[in-house]
Amino acid sequence: MILSEKINSDIVKQLSLEEKKQLCEEIRAFLIDNVSRTGGHLASNLGTVELTVALHSVFTTPEDKIVFDVGHQSYTHKLLTGRYERFGELRAKGGLSGFPRSSESEHDAFIGGHSSISISAALGIAKAMELEGKAGNVIAVIGDGALTGGQAYEGLNNVSKLSNNLIIILNDNEMSISRSKGSVADYLTRMRSSRSYYDKKAAVKDFLSHSELGKEISKSISGTKDLVKFAIYQSNIFESLGLKYYGPVNGHDLGKLIEILEIAKLTNEPCIVHVKTKKGKGYKPAELNSGEYHGLSGKNSTARKAASFSEAAGTALQEFAASDEKICAVTAAMKYATGLEHIAKNYPERFFDVGIAEQHALTFCCGLASQGMLPVFAVYSTFLQRCCDQLIHDASIEKKHIVLMIDRAGFVGEDGETHQGLFDVPMLSSVPNTAIYSPFDRNTLKLCLEKALYEEDGIAAVRYPKGVCPAGARRKYRDFYYSGKTNRKLIVTYGRIAHFAQDIAGVDSLTLLRIFPISSEAVQAAADYDEVYFFEEGMRSGGIAEKFLCAAYERGFSGKYHIIAVEGAAGAADIETQLADAGLDRAGMEKRISDE
Amino acid sequence: MILSEKINSDIVKQLSLEEKKQLCEEIRAFLIDNVSRTGGHLASNLGTVELTVALHSVFTTPEDKIVFDVGHQSYTHKLLTGRYERFGELRAKGGLSGFPRSSESEHDAFIGGHSSISISAALGIAKAMELEGKAGNVIAVIGDGALTGGQAYEGLNNVSKLSNNLIIILNDNEMSISRSKGSVADYLTRMRSSRSYYDKKAAVKDFLSHSELGKEISKSISGTKDLVKFAIYQSNIFESLGLKYYGPVNGHDLGKLIEILEIAKLTNEPCIVHVKTKKGKGYKPAELNSGEYHGLSGKNSTARKAASFSEAAGTALQEFAASDEKICAVTAAMKYATGLEHIAKNYPERFFDVGIAEQHALTFCCGLASQGMLPVFAVYSTFLQRCCDQLIHDASIEKKHIVLMIDRAGFVGEDGETHQGLFDVPMLSSVPNTAIYSPFDRNTLKLCLEKALYEEDGIAAVRYPKGVCPAGARRKYRDFYYSGKTNRKLIVTYGRIAHFAQDIAGVDSLTLLRIFPISSEAVQAAADYDEVYFFEEGMRSGGIAEKFLCAAYERGFSGKYHIIAVEGAAGAADIETQLADAGLDRAGMEKRISDE
Repeated sequence: MILSEKINSDIVKQLSLEEKKQLCEEIRAFLIDNVSRTGGHLASNLGTVELTVALHSVFTTPEDKIVFDVGHQSYTHKLLTGRYERFGELRAKGGLSGFPRSSESEHDAFIGGHSSISISAALGIAKAMELEGKAGNVIAVIGDGALTGGQAYEGLNNVSKLSNNLIIILNDNEMSISRSKGSVADYLTRMRSSRSYYDKKAAVKDFLSHSELGKEISKSISGTKDLVKFAIYQSNIFESLGLKYYGPVNGHDLGKLIEILEIAKLTNEPCIVHVKTKKGKGYKPAELNSGEYHGLSGKNSTARKAASFSEAAGTALQEFAASDEKICAVTAAMKYATGLEHIAKNYPERFFDVGIAEQHALTFCCGLASQGMLPVFAVYSTFLQRCCDQLIHDASIEKKHIVLMIDRAGFVGEDGETHQGLFDVPMLSSVPNTAIYSPFDRNTLKLCLEKALYEEDGIAAVRYPKGVCPAGARRKYRDFYYSGKTNRKLIVTYGRIAHFAQDIAGVDSLTLLRIFPISSEAVQAAADYDEVYFFEEGMRSGGIAEKFLCAAYERGFSGKYHIIAVEGAAGAADIETQLADAGLDRAGMEKRISDE
Repeated sequence: MILSEKINSDIVKQLSLEEKKQLCEEIRAFLIDNVSRTGGHLASNLGTVELTVALHSVFTTPEDKIVFDVGHQSYTHKLLTGRYERFGELRAKGGLSGFPRSSESEHDAFIGGHSSISISAALGIAKAMELEGKAGNVIAVIGDGALTGGQAYEGLNNVSKLSNNLIIILNDNEMSISRSKGSVADYLTRMRSSRSYYDKKAAVKDFLSHSELGKEISKSISGTKDLVKFAIYQSNIFESLGLKYYGPVNGHDLGKLIEILEIAKLTNEPCIVHVKTKKGKGYKPAELNSGEYHGLSGKNSTARKAASFSEAAGTALQEFAASDEKICAVTAAMKYATGLEHIAKNYPERFFDVGIAEQHALTFCCGLASQGMLPVFAVYSTFLQRCCDQLIHDASIEKKHIVLMIDRAGFVGEDGETHQGLFDVPMLSSVPNTAIYSPFDRNTLKLCLEKALYEEDGIAAVRYPKGVCPAGARRKYRDFYYSGKTNRKLIVTYGRIAHFAQDIAGVDSLTLLRIFPISSEAVQAAADYDEVYFFEEGMRSGGIAEKFLCAAYERGFSGKYHIIAVEGAAGAADIETQLADAGLDRAGMEKRISDE
């Protein structure tokens, strides 16, 4: 075995090509074995084993900086940079992050998690090194999916000739989480299927400069010569944007990869290396359905999905869409994860997967709404952060009626800080013309979605957590549920943690369903108590608990008020642990109430 | 005179080409005359007179939809769609907006204001029309500057073959507000200077298919044939992305413009028309320095700039940069407007204009910070909304020390709703590891900037308003200024409106300088009063006033608490009026306090 706790970049460099190939196989077996147990991203990591070994054969971290875009493909990198032994605790509390974290290792040049930021970060790093006179290459590894995000293009647009030490690796696996969408994906597909672009260019150049026919052309075309020249030297989007282009190269041919990276390293201008990889490479189930193997929970994920809030939301939306032709569904590369596959299958003409492009998605919804359609954007809470401006500018000001199905709202578990859904409430509740619903079971989810679709006229958000969705009792819609006053203490809460608040001895319970704008009736009910405990699975600063207190104070509330909410970054752990650590589970509620 | 209150799209269509040209000249004279008086965007509108007349010659609103990107170039469109008579009240309270507003006219298909959204919006509109079986073209008019924003690219990536009625007009004036930056700009410049691309393509095609030499090539090149074919059919970025491309065409040649738009209208697939225009066309001072004539205040704008907060901030930063080589300054196409021209001139190697690309700017700063540099991003409050996710994900989680100079924080006056700087405080104050300063004069601005640079270790924001910056008394830095208790009422406030709160009879005053995190000492001081009035030039929901109350309540405050802040969208008017309407000027404060 070459792979062991001793493995590192230096050792990799000393291996023969054959040994490196063996290392790749060992890593692959290790990943399949481990990730099946710990959960995590399998397919993307299997696809980048050779690429990562090649990177560590040619470059040396931390002097060279590797920035992994999204970063869920960085497991091999972690194995090769001193984290082999900690791999059993991947994504566990206190364990290795599932993403690059510079706070975890100096070998992780920049945080990973969200998409399309690597070129921007790499440019910043490269510029700083240049200003400080530091040697070393900066390498951004970005997938074709991440390339659909606008920020990647903003980054490309800023790759100037000055960033001589910048190398962009385009990890082209022909798909993001769902299949890559759009013109860029089409374009890359055409490039993939072409013969090595550089070979061809060389051939044309050779042809024109050496053959008689070529000389003839040079003389004859005159007016069109520029065009041909342009075609030869610049017929590729990346070169048009000022990047030297190498590829496409087979991303599982270790020898060729190392070769092309050596060339890139010697290139004294910013360049892009186009690497063709296969997600799930070497593990048949993952190769055949890499979408399913994108993220593994380490348990039976199919059964979990069937019972999830996402699935409940997707099913409910599909039902509304069946009787309402105005409803359109929009996703940013999350068709399956958000449960939109049902509407996609039955009403493909009203389903839009725009790629990893949340800004576009939101404005596109506003465009649909401006013509009387009823657009629904299903998006993870953490990714909604990408279109804050579009919510304010495109949706709110002229009060476009759009519906947000905000998935993974609240704690998300093992993905940790980068993916927590804790900011959507503070963000949305400062935007005028916005209503926010927070259902806690299948029944209220459908009720809330109906309200959002048909009884709001601005931005109407329905937010729900990751995980299993209880069926819930049949009940009518109410802005809040409240049992009446029998105690002197009251718990106010919303969302999934509302379940914990039921039947706690000595305290009444009020559950908000339409959490914003604050219900004055709910406030009135609460204002009468000696002590109010507001439990909130979201950021304290700017959350509902603060606003509820302000409203209660205005109505003369003078009891004690306790806010139990999230106050800082919340790291990886399972969701139950995250809730417990924040004091937001049943035990936490009971303890808090008996403490006072 | 052809231009009169009766002018409309129908009349334009009936004019001869000569009459249309005359109309253009009349519009140009009208704009120069009017905008000099009302203030507004002159250069961009002078540059698009012919284009707009051509659009209304070929298309008919509101059946056809024109979406102006940014939208400050829509004055001619407003003149031609029934708003001639209201033009004297452009950008005044209750008057015409300086941007397209569908709430203002059915001829304005979508709101304008922020950059790079037009393609997304146009796609939504086009899709909705298609689903509803409505006829009509959808035209997005986007400048080369706006094309540097990532969302434009997300939009382009989603222009599918299905959007047959979509026409994108690339209004290429070789500059955004500052000069366009980056590879895309370079690329467009190359295209501009080329002979009409289509002429050339036709020539090559013709050459290859008809001449003997061409046939010879077809036979001989074999392996390279694909490449040549690719070059001929796809050698342009836009065509690579699946758009038919027409141009470049001279944007001041009305006849040619009408011709090419007629062709675009007949084209049964999405297309892009590349139009070369000159900002400020026909008005020498604006042609020569369109940057200066970008926005006119209707008064002596040079004198105003010299005394502005922007200038004070830019000068202060330049001073710090002189003695600290770690400081880097970043702008998103707002070099002059944010006062960064000083640092740009003296330390060009540490100055970065990234184009209209706030997302990239923020992550780029984090990349710089990760290597120990001290990046400062100078950005308007309203545009900071574009990088909310990057603040949370790239900056906050791993506590990168970056400084934000947030300009135009608070009311911005005549630009109205789309540009108000009212959301940065709610947004930033929910992000962990963030501190916010709100200076109110030149002296405190420099003190705050120094604190932000050297005594914070996460996101450190210094926010200041549009307008004249008083020199201010020399005083030491304090988190807040408080005169001591002599009355039973207290005003708490921050920012420029703090001036109004001084010396109001019967009330003490507490001015926050470091407004977030909430100062517990300030809260302690306030908790002792019978009545506290918190005046806040920002959104109430999620603002500092709410958080201050929560903190005061926790410390036993039981007096009356009044929040006077912004509660909804605030339309165009001068800043003084906006402050007065919100009750945030001196009269409003006095009235509010004597009322209770």
